[in-house]
Amino acid sequence: MRVNAYAAPSATEPLVPTTIERRDVGATDVLIEIRYAGICHSDIHTVRGEWGPITYPQVVGHEIVGVVAEVGSEVTKHQVGDRVGVGCLVNSCRECENCRAGMEQYCLNGNVGTYASVDRDGTITQGGYSTHVVVDQDFVLRVPESIPFEKAAPLLCAGITTYSPLAHWKAGPGTRVAVVGMGGLGHMAVKIAHAMGATVTVLSQSLKKRDDGLALGADEYYATSDPDTFAALKNRFDLIVNTVSAPLDMDDYLRLLRLNGTLVIVGAPPEELPVHAFALSGQRRSFAGSGIGGIPETQEMLDFCAEHGIAPETELISADYINEAYERVLGSDVRYRFVIDIATLA
Amino acid sequence: MRVNAYAAPSATEPLVPTTIERRDVGATDVLIEIRYAGICHSDIHTVRGEWGPITYPQVVGHEIVGVVAEVGSEVTKHQVGDRVGVGCLVNSCRECENCRAGMEQYCLNGNVGTYASVDRDGTITQGGYSTHVVVDQDFVLRVPESIPFEKAAPLLCAGITTYSPLAHWKAGPGTRVAVVGMGGLGHMAVKIAHAMGATVTVLSQSLKKRDDGLALGADEYYATSDPDTFAALKNRFDLIVNTVSAPLDMDDYLRLLRLNGTLVIVGAPPEELPVHAFALSGQRRSFAGSGIGGIPETQEMLDFCAEHGIAPETELISADYINEAYERVLGSDVRYRFVIDIATLA
Repeated sequence: MRVNAYAAPSATEPLVPTTIERRDVGATDVLIEIRYAGICHSDIHTVRGEWGPITYPQVVGHEIVGVVAEVGSEVTKHQVGDRVGVGCLVNSCRECENCRAGMEQYCLNGNVGTYASVDRDGTITQGGYSTHVVVDQDFVLRVPESIPFEKAAPLLCAGITTYSPLAHWKAGPGTRVAVVGMGGLGHMAVKIAHAMGATVTVLSQSLKKRDDGLALGADEYYATSDPDTFAALKNRFDLIVNTVSAPLDMDDYLRLLRLNGTLVIVGAPPEELPVHAFALSGQRRSFAGSGIGGIPETQEMLDFCAEHGIAPETELISADYINEAYERVLGSDVRYRFVIDIATLA
Repeated sequence: MRVNAYAAPSATEPLVPTTIERRDVGATDVLIEIRYAGICHSDIHTVRGEWGPITYPQVVGHEIVGVVAEVGSEVTKHQVGDRVGVGCLVNSCRECENCRAGMEQYCLNGNVGTYASVDRDGTITQGGYSTHVVVDQDFVLRVPESIPFEKAAPLLCAGITTYSPLAHWKAGPGTRVAVVGMGGLGHMAVKIAHAMGATVTVLSQSLKKRDDGLALGADEYYATSDPDTFAALKNRFDLIVNTVSAPLDMDDYLRLLRLNGTLVIVGAPPEELPVHAFALSGQRRSFAGSGIGGIPETQEMLDFCAEHGIAPETELISADYINEAYERVLGSDVRYRFVIDIATLA
């Protein structure tokens, strides 16, 4: 099946319209007619080869929502017409201890990413900037009806990437959570941490997005460009979720943690991040990393967002705007996530 | 009261015999006749000014055991003749949330270290390479009779520094613990982790101390100079206790952690330790730091060691051997802790 898509022809050229092949619907597969796809910073890192060399042409996009158009003969979890989503994963070994525990993102044999990964059949996976995708039923999520469809896509990466560490490190009533960076991930972290009952502080470069942050649920908003911020907030937080994909001074942020606090990085700056032992041992602090979430937890997050009326703040674009959108993402000029209306690709 | 001591006259000269003043025994104070004092790597860092400038002359030593010689009018916790110990702390604010939780080592107003700290009366604290010390009763520990007195001193720093993270991160049956470095701290970590029921692996530069490690309770012993070690042990451990006070490649060690594992640094290399985000987020790993232990936990550790028949491996020396001992500590040439027989100072 040949379908329309937007692909990167190389690391240095703009994305262009093209067609790609989708595999036949196997016994356990679901064919999804994609309606919306979010644009994630990872898409840009990937197509530009910043996380390592890839094969071109490459279609990216791992924030996907759509409607089930066809199911394989053994599919039991989804039906034609269902509102579904696909995030960063489309397969894993299913046998290792992490997969068995529902944490396929940490598959010890290497999971299969939604794009730029080697699929079971040896082909390279192609992402969601496309009209259709075929995915094994076990990696397809249910998208609750109460989440506006055109806003739901970013939950599949930005949502779960922030929900997972907030849940794992137990953000909730009585905990003080800081969110570093007020972008696609950061604004979701604010909404989710607030809904979990935590006291939420945004640490952003400037106060430019302060009104938004407070409106989305933050209790406090500080500019990290102001050196007083680091003195004022020393030993304050139980958990800091760092969504910034650039190298910050980790010691500065670690010192904002109180006893037993954790700074968790969910972005993935390729640069090394120097840490000093005293910044950790001074208050038994931890510097941790978290990657997306497993399939059960992603469903849990979608249900949590439906229950709490949470959806991303989005700007809907047509496919021919993708390259411009990329430049705006790199310039932090989006409030807060671009979503491609896939109807414009049909 | 003027007492004999061994002091550093400057950052660059050897330690020399001298006398120092000890304060009068206040209402809540205990006068301890010191019997044994351990030599800790921190002593060397401190007298040589490697952790910052200090005032000279300086007496170090924060692994102290002795006998109570006199108590103040309000002392209720200790009696003349009791076997007692003093570790790295002799005071703290007692008011902050950490002090109130019995974690005086993390005192938010700054604790008072046993040496080279500013005491309540404005004087600089002087450590245990000395015949006597006066300490507030709340910072004096009971040393159980079943622990050989001449071996007990290193428990007050090497013991608690390794016990605390092992307890906090729940080393026990079913957990896999690695100990990096087979020195004063490392050999105690092996004994304590083994007694807690964990499976213990030593990661040492070479296999030179392998027989000792296995005899002390390690289940496995690997040389980190062998590059195969890092491939063989990938994703293996729940907890790694890094006792090495020099900068190692943290990413290499982080990758040895399984899902949710923690690498905790208990040494304090002054150099920066670069970490890459992917080494953390690949298996939701944490890089943490831990500093000694609080007073309640130090007592708990002493009681644990008594119950499990654990004592440090020591080499007893006379005071005039201290400078030679320092050189041997720096050359990793001690199995596994020097203890000064304070009778040789009298």
